[in-house]
Amino acid sequence: MAEFGPTGLWLVGARGSVATTAITGLLALRAGVVAPTGCVSATAPFEDMDLPGWDELHIGGHDIVQTPLEKRAELLSESGVIPHRVFQAVRSGLSEIDNELRAGYHPATHPGSQADAARALSADITEFAQRRGLRRVVVVNVSSTEPVFPELPEHNTLEALEAAMSVPGRTVLPPSSVAAYAALRSGCPYVDFTPSTGVRLPALERLATELGLPYAGSDGKTGETLVRSALAPMFTTRALAVRSWAGTNLLGGGDGLTLADAEHAGSKLVSKGRGLETLLGGAVTAPLHIDNVPDLGEQKIAWDNVSFEGFLGTRMSLQFTWTGYDSSLAAPLVLDLARFTAAAHAAGQSGPLGSLAFFFKDPVGSDEHRLAEQAAALRKWAMAL
Amino acid sequence: MAEFGPTGLWLVGARGSVATTAITGLLALRAGVVAPTGCVSATAPFEDMDLPGWDELHIGGHDIVQTPLEKRAELLSESGVIPHRVFQAVRSGLSEIDNELRAGYHPATHPGSQADAARALSADITEFAQRRGLRRVVVVNVSSTEPVFPELPEHNTLEALEAAMSVPGRTVLPPSSVAAYAALRSGCPYVDFTPSTGVRLPALERLATELGLPYAGSDGKTGETLVRSALAPMFTTRALAVRSWAGTNLLGGGDGLTLADAEHAGSKLVSKGRGLETLLGGAVTAPLHIDNVPDLGEQKIAWDNVSFEGFLGTRMSLQFTWTGYDSSLAAPLVLDLARFTAAAHAAGQSGPLGSLAFFFKDPVGSDEHRLAEQAAALRKWAMAL
Amino acid sequence: MAEFGPTGLWLVGARGSVATTAITGLLALRAGVVAPTGCVSATAPFEDMDLPGWDELHIGGHDIVQTPLEKRAELLSESGVIPHRVFQAVRSGLSEIDNELRAGYHPATHPGSQADAARALSADITEFAQRRGLRRVVVVNVSSTEPVFPELPEHNTLEALEAAMSVPGRTVLPPSSVAAYAALRSGCPYVDFTPSTGVRLPALERLATELGLPYAGSDGKTGETLVRSALAPMFTTRALAVRSWAGTNLLGGGDGLTLADAEHAGSKLVSKGRGLETLLGGAVTAPLHIDNVPDLGEQKIAWDNVSFEGFLGTRMSLQFTWTGYDSSLAAPLVLDLARFTAAAHAAGQSGPLGSLAFFFKDPVGSDEHRLAEQAAALRKWAMAL
Amino acid sequence: MAEFGPTGLWLVGARGSVATTAITGLLALRAGVVAPTGCVSATAPFEDMDLPGWDELHIGGHDIVQTPLEKRAELLSESGVIPHRVFQAVRSGLSEIDNELRAGYHPATHPGSQADAARALSADITEFAQRRGLRRVVVVNVSSTEPVFPELPEHNTLEALEAAMSVPGRTVLPPSSVAAYAALRSGCPYVDFTPSTGVRLPALERLATELGLPYAGSDGKTGETLVRSALAPMFTTRALAVRSWAGTNLLGGGDGLTLADAEHAGSKLVSKGRGLETLLGGAVTAPLHIDNVPDLGEQKIAWDNVSFEGFLGTRMSLQFTWTGYDSSLAAPLVLDLARFTAAAHAAGQSGPLGSLAFFFKDPVGSDEHRLAEQAAALRKWAMAL
Repeated sequence: MAEFGPTGLWLVGARGSVATTAITGLLALRAGVVAPTGCVSATAPFEDMDLPGWDELHIGGHDIVQTPLEKRAELLSESGVIPHRVFQAVRSGLSEIDNELRAGYHPATHPGSQADAARALSADITEFAQRRGLRRVVVVNVSSTEPVFPELPEHNTLEALEAAMSVPGRTVLPPSSVAAYAALRSGCPYVDFTPSTGVRLPALERLATELGLPYAGSDGKTGETLVRSALAPMFTTRALAVRSWAGTNLLGGGDGLTLADAEHAGSKLVSKGRGLETLLGGAVTAPLHIDNVPDLGEQKIAWDNVSFEGFLGTRMSLQFTWTGYDSSLAAPLVLDLARFTAAAHAAGQSGPLGSLAFFFKDPVGSDEHRLAEQAAALRKWAMAL
Repeated sequence: MAEFGPTGLWLVGARGSVATTAITGLLALRAGVVAPTGCVSATAPFEDMDLPGWDELHIGGHDIVQTPLEKRAELLSESGVIPHRVFQAVRSGLSEIDNELRAGYHPATHPGSQADAARALSADITEFAQRRGLRRVVVVNVSSTEPVFPELPEHNTLEALEAAMSVPGRTVLPPSSVAAYAALRSGCPYVDFTPSTGVRLPALERLATELGLPYAGSDGKTGETLVRSALAPMFTTRALAVRSWAGTNLLGGGDGLTLADAEHAGSKLVSKGRGLETLLGGAVTAPLHIDNVPDLGEQKIAWDNVSFEGFLGTRMSLQFTWTGYDSSLAAPLVLDLARFTAAAHAAGQSGPLGSLAFFFKDPVGSDEHRLAEQAAALRKWAMAL
Repeated sequence: MAEFGPTGLWLVGARGSVATTAITGLLALRAGVVAPTGCVSATAPFEDMDLPGWDELHIGGHDIVQTPLEKRAELLSESGVIPHRVFQAVRSGLSEIDNELRAGYHPATHPGSQADAARALSADITEFAQRRGLRRVVVVNVSSTEPVFPELPEHNTLEALEAAMSVPGRTVLPPSSVAAYAALRSGCPYVDFTPSTGVRLPALERLATELGLPYAGSDGKTGETLVRSALAPMFTTRALAVRSWAGTNLLGGGDGLTLADAEHAGSKLVSKGRGLETLLGGAVTAPLHIDNVPDLGEQKIAWDNVSFEGFLGTRMSLQFTWTGYDSSLAAPLVLDLARFTAAAHAAGQSGPLGSLAFFFKDPVGSDEHRLAEQAAALRKWAMAL
Repeated sequence: MAEFGPTGLWLVGARGSVATTAITGLLALRAGVVAPTGCVSATAPFEDMDLPGWDELHIGGHDIVQTPLEKRAELLSESGVIPHRVFQAVRSGLSEIDNELRAGYHPATHPGSQADAARALSADITEFAQRRGLRRVVVVNVSSTEPVFPELPEHNTLEALEAAMSVPGRTVLPPSSVAAYAALRSGCPYVDFTPSTGVRLPALERLATELGLPYAGSDGKTGETLVRSALAPMFTTRALAVRSWAGTNLLGGGDGLTLADAEHAGSKLVSKGRGLETLLGGAVTAPLHIDNVPDLGEQKIAWDNVSFEGFLGTRMSLQFTWTGYDSSLAAPLVLDLARFTAAAHAAGQSGPLGSLAFFFKDPVGSDEHRLAEQAAALRKWAMAL
């Protein structure tokens, strides 16, 4: 495999659990102390693909909190996400990366215009790219899920949007969209690993296409929805009629706190529901809950009950329980997305990367929610690149 | 859709739960009192395919027991497999079909040669086909799982096999293989819905090919293995390393009794294990049990625990519980297999029908165990026909 | 065992699923076509107790709907609660009991005063008792759960309450409390199998005591809470520290519709939560959901996740799934409560029957929620009677 | 609380997971770095009881392996049983205790007579007690489960037993019984936390009584059986008829290896089965499996399916999944048993301690298997002491 060239991975929410785990893992992979378990891009179907190597990925990022990465990694080590020996092996590397992290944007602490805020974010990314001599930087949003942001007429055209962004004190965009705008204005592809708005506004999507930049998202598929996307096609291809699909999610950590809050959960629940309907070819009774259970720490437990009808109307059921560490599941996909999106950019692709639907609950550029078909599409895309 | 022409479905084990449910269901479909839930061949991807209609399928069969079909259906009605109203709607039809069932072969009750036994079975099928004016008859084995039958040198060539079959009192073949031989000698395609030996002997496979007859099997995929074939690819495509996959099956009914017996279970456990290794790309710890729990009646409960490793070696798990009626799951597939195999025969295909792997735990003619890929292969095959 | 004497069981909500199943079961027990499975009062510890026999129980009741009992029983037969053969054996008996059912009270359809409504209810019960020559009548509320009713100052004294009840069009009591008041005024013990207010108002509790009438309740313990009351003491007696206990309930039928509605669920969720705190000796994180899943029919599925801490702080978990028919679980307890409450009345007991806490989620007259201790208290009480 | 006086806890299998966790925990309790979670003797009902304090317990023991305790504790720390900070806090203490551990007995490595072996074991315990100035020493067996040992006529009288023990090379007792004999001969109470034979032979039981020594056992109740003993009474007191109770146990670690072996599992499965029959008041279908799943490490997962019948014969089910660390569950009970047994000895009790049935799957001196009743009996006993 040829050298791909130095590539930036700029993390929005760089001090969060997912980002910290991704950074720790990248350092551990470089050091050879772990295998790339969970990294799709390191599996056989992609071994001939031209992707940035672990040594070629340079990490930078924004965050609105200041806790040092090393401290965050230590906490994740205590809660079972990062093995103690891995933490020991990479802690000095974490301190170095800490120097590349910059203060993120939050409306409450940025009284100026959103245009100014975006310029500052862009400047951070550009400075990073130049100083490190990077060919390209992929911006990936892994910050906390935002409350649902209202649709505004200003979102429809770039002119209207930029005019509104220039008004001091006006909040026309949620932070994820300010980050997406800043990414695009720096010439960077943008990936949204969260269900937040990000680039998904008419004005920003058009901007991406005009600038020839690819983008991907939304909402990393790491647990209950992942299992659903593998199981639902079993029912449909077997002509078994699903009558209800109920789900309960127990989350600890900051995620539980953020998502159990009804307003925040709104965007998450919508992502999850949309996929299920598409998978089953119609609406079914599908109550869904997200509960904050702090004692679970970084763990996440999902229970689903699928009630279905078979031959002659007989009732049967499938139940599953998924117990996982959200950050362990998400982090390797963040590295995958950085690599694949960098390859797409290098190949001149722009606009929504529907071929990356495999990674998302609510994929942009694709209506395909079946996991196996998404995997096949990803392989086909990689082969063609 | 053009008329396909009158087609026979000859059931080996025609008075068992699966056969009784399939026959009841066929009558109910003809009467329009149920929808074809669970019938793959009735779903959208196959609607343009030339297949025998419900009215074109004629039922006959062999069994070694004499209980009337109507009585069997009544018992299945009490145990929840057949709704009471469906039973009422078809009971007279069941009595008519009862007249088409003939005495099956069992070594304990047939002291003559297996060649004689096979000739008698063939004569039953041929007489049925002629009397009903059928273009073709598909023979489907849905009898009880047999104990593992030893490999013998006589199985390798037709000459040696037929010579051994002619020796009075000699048991060179298990009953499923006598049935398969009889089917082939009557010019009929053969499908094995059980893990029994059936056609899977070198001499018989060669005979099928020589006679230009297609065959399919083995061991209908209706529960735990079905779910495994949908879930296992999720782990492999996501680079999650499965460390163990433990399974427990609780079965009532005759199936529980037959399969919990270690010797019989042998063939079933081998079918199940083979698929898992192929799906996961290597051996994992995979203890598997089948328990006889008579009070469950026709129900079947499977519990699986999948222990897997994610990024940085973190341990996570997926558990599922499947509660189904085995006959409700199997019966529509028996109708599907009759229709698809008839279509293959009509199209001149012969030998193992690997494209029907979608239906089986241990598919002949295919190494593909991933459910989605099997479904795609089936659709592709149907389209090409 | 001596004869207890003719005893009435007056059901409020007599055409509901629980009542219909209880009535059907009583008829089936009398006919000897079923065993008293699920009937606590028919187990060994109570065999020497003087209780009304199955033949001595006379059924009457109120309901606001008119569907004939036979029709209701037929529907329950189709949904798996009542076996077909049991329905056939008792259907004529159901029609006879239908004649003893009277129109119940609902504010929307009774424009007069609640005092008038209560008088009419009382008259129905009294007329029933006299005509049948009953020694006593136990009134049991099995109607749908009511929305939480606001506390009012009029609830504190009988004088104020009766004055308010006399005002035409004034709704000072929820229907369950009107029924309780009518029961007491007819000289009848009152049992509340629902979480509705019923007798639990200062004025009514005092009235019961003054009239020398026993009462029991509230909210029959038939599923998730039953299991919790058996399991929670395991953790406390073993010094295992429960950190969270999350629960999800999937209900079909009318119950699902009523309870999933936030306002109605209010009273149910409060009943459930109160017990858990008492059982565990303090508050824990305990999110709880009730979802309406109509396709489940009469079935009810509860899933609980208990996360607990053991020695040295190690985290462990217990999960359970309960799949039951609510009416099958509740109905025999309704018969038990009628028998035990009649015995208490015969023995001259009045006020709250704390010894019946075994049957309830939110017991009156007792703070004991541990199932084994409740069972022991019930046995001790029965022995002393 | 008065001082109880210095008390020995002599562990047979002192370097195993349970013993190492118990020792580590005792040191951590003394150091005040953990709370006594999981220690029954530290709960409210026993706070006025005269028991040896954490500082008064002196640890010694036998083992046939030589791995240092510190090394064992480090491995347990990596597998999640012992938190890293606890290990750090006690590691020097572990080294000190290591000096008190002596070579245990195993027939394969002791070619002499079992009488000689027992004398050597006794001498170790006596020397320990004298050197440390202990008032009494409780011997607790926490070594690996033995294969079922055949009954021999020599087990019936002490004379015959001691004669046979004197024959060089003759193995008349399993190691657990040699340890029990040695304990008794040293004047020490004996507790068996395993299902091995231990003191449960007529000759040894009589010896204990003659020497005025109490003993307790067998087979610590720490997982599936614990839950069963809490849940089974729910069904019986509610008159719900359990039809089958199936169980699957997945074990990693050395325990999985030992117990999945059919011969060893024999004794464990018998312990488990005996309790269930007593709890349910009769035999039910109860298939039970123990599987070795090495990747689970110290974790243990049990899944049980309870199928039961309710009113009118309706079928319902309860399923539970228990995920625990065996050593975390067992270790605090080992400390409890040392304290309670020391108190019994101090109070002059001898023979089987039926009041400790709460701790065991197969209690000596008691037929009570219901958890709540066992807890009540323990409290009553403690109160009386």
